Amino acid sequence: MTPPLVLGLDIGGTSSRAMLADLDGHRIGSGSAAGGNPTAHEVSQAFAAVEAALRAALATVDPARVAGAVVGMAGVGRLTESGVADQFEKMWHRVGLRCPYRAVPDAVVAFAAGTPAPHGTLLLAGTGAIAARIRDRQLGRICDGHGWLLGDLGSGFWLGREAVRATLAHLDGWTGLSALARRLLDDLLGTVPPPGRESVTAVVNAVRRDPPVALARFAPLVCQAAADGDGVARDIVERAAGHLLDSVAQIRAAETGPRAEAGPLVLAGSLLVADTPVSTAVRAGAALRWPTVTVTLAGDGAAGAAWLAARPLLAAATPATTLHARLVHPP
Amino acid sequence: MTPPLVLGLDIGGTSSRAMLADLDGHRIGSGSAAGGNPTAHEVSQAFAAVEAALRAALATVDPARVAGAVVGMAGVGRLTESGVADQFEKMWHRVGLRCPYRAVPDAVVAFAAGTPAPHGTLLLAGTGAIAARIRDRQLGRICDGHGWLLGDLGSGFWLGREAVRATLAHLDGWTGLSALARRLLDDLLGTVPPPGRESVTAVVNAVRRDPPVALARFAPLVCQAAADGDGVARDIVERAAGHLLDSVAQIRAAETGPRAEAGPLVLAGSLLVADTPVSTAVRAGAALRWPTVTVTLAGDGAAGAAWLAARPLLAAATPATTLHARLVHPP
Repeated sequence: MTPPLVLGLDIGGTSSRAMLADLDGHRIGSGSAAGGNPTAHEVSQAFAAVEAALRAALATVDPARVAGAVVGMAGVGRLTESGVADQFEKMWHRVGLRCPYRAVPDAVVAFAAGTPAPHGTLLLAGTGAIAARIRDRQLGRICDGHGWLLGDLGSGFWLGREAVRATLAHLDGWTGLSALARRLLDDLLGTVPPPGRESVTAVVNAVRRDPPVALARFAPLVCQAAADGDGVARDIVERAAGHLLDSVAQIRAAETGPRAEAGPLVLAGSLLVADTPVSTAVRAGAALRWPTVTVTLAGDGAAGAAWLAARPLLAAATPATTLHARLVHPP
Repeated sequence: MTPPLVLGLDIGGTSSRAMLADLDGHRIGSGSAAGGNPTAHEVSQAFAAVEAALRAALATVDPARVAGAVVGMAGVGRLTESGVADQFEKMWHRVGLRCPYRAVPDAVVAFAAGTPAPHGTLLLAGTGAIAARIRDRQLGRICDGHGWLLGDLGSGFWLGREAVRATLAHLDGWTGLSALARRLLDDLLGTVPPPGRESVTAVVNAVRRDPPVALARFAPLVCQAAADGDGVARDIVERAAGHLLDSVAQIRAAETGPRAEAGPLVLAGSLLVADTPVSTAVRAGAALRWPTVTVTLAGDGAAGAAWLAARPLLAAATPATTLHARLVHPP
């Protein structure tokens, strides 16, 4: 009998990732495609992206060998709505999968991609930002994660918006020309105009041409300018880290039970897992505020999902933590 | 010879107001119509609204009697763009006006609607928020006024967004059910659901159904709840007033020259000229921070514009301040 395989899916708004593994922690296949979240995209288009990621991961094996699967997704309740569930299951069968799947919040998958521990705190900052308590690998209390209009403080969107605000303060004559403002103006307008009302209007109008969430595209520019020592960018980064750490503090302050059960702090999302000044500031702040807490960076969410799928299938003799290390942080 | 008349126009994003007066300060006619700002609306539609306001104001007189006019508008530079200027002038002639008009920023008109003084500070808070230095009845330094995405701190939009954020904090289980959250949920969802993830999603989705700026519709709800003593609403109001006062402080701190020349602080916009808790808090804060500064409420912007139009036409013997009192604050 061929050994069983497990499948992990991490369906995001900007990318869909799939990973196929065996129970020894070997990565058998993987795939990625465009965003597949049916809340952010039209349903059939969303699931076409998920299907592409799945087909890539399953390319070299018989899909019937997959014995378990976990699907992580923001707003996972959508997968239980009748029209959406039907389409997802049709797609599931179309790629040849016969096993059931378990749908879990993306935060649970991100946490599992950082630690094999059952409890802890997740801090995720990419385009958006959310902090969450994880207990028994389930979602507990949440702080923020409300989207750019109502929250996401300290997120990539937030960094980009603060960069534009700092640039407007310069153009309104309140501050000098920072390296950040120079880069942002050059990026946005293709020129660095002098302070004045016309320049302010030009910036506001240029920003309005794109959807608001596109402000997140300036986040790398803030990180770069901060890394180069620009004071305005450093201030924005410090404030972002402050917001993110405050969310973690709110989650951890609500904890009851012995401290030892509080578990690690997992950092996830592009702003925190990459080597950015925001990640550096958050890690420094966490070390100061919670010196006894282990801080880890999340790996590939699809690997975290695959590990969650593997856990119930493991023989008693196989420690789940060993599998976690192999799957999530392969040598 | 029939005595000359003056015309004031205050063209806003949500309403266009016209006022016709004689040089003794008698209001001869007035009119109001939908928003007429060619930046916020399609140009011909915008000027159709302005035309309607003008026709109402001019209904009982020969338009050729109008000897001077001032047009106040946000983003007044638009009126000098060729396509826009052409349409405005065609409309101007269509209603029978033969006099020239002077286009000035809406902030200058709002300031003139509050004081006959040449210098001072304007603080305007309606759907948006802006503070500005006025010198010789012209626009000086500006603080904020960048629109809901990039600024407008302490505005009606800001109040509404903070109200939703406070409601989400309740639904996320962080706070009890405030009177404000109860009213907002009832208004937004038609029901007051229990805390939980589904309720959070319902609120976020309900907010997303409308354009972001529509959040300003919750501002009256915040004001009402604060007036009724709700602590959450009072906190939002205090923070809004803090943002608005900080903008004024920034403007006033940049002042050079003798203090006596600094002039009054004019409060304008629906949040500040009506009897709202925000206006009360701003006035209390201003009295504490700048005890020697006169604070006045702006009257009708169209009356301020009419007064600006009248000033150069007044005989030397007629004090402009007397005309101001009659026009802007009639008995």
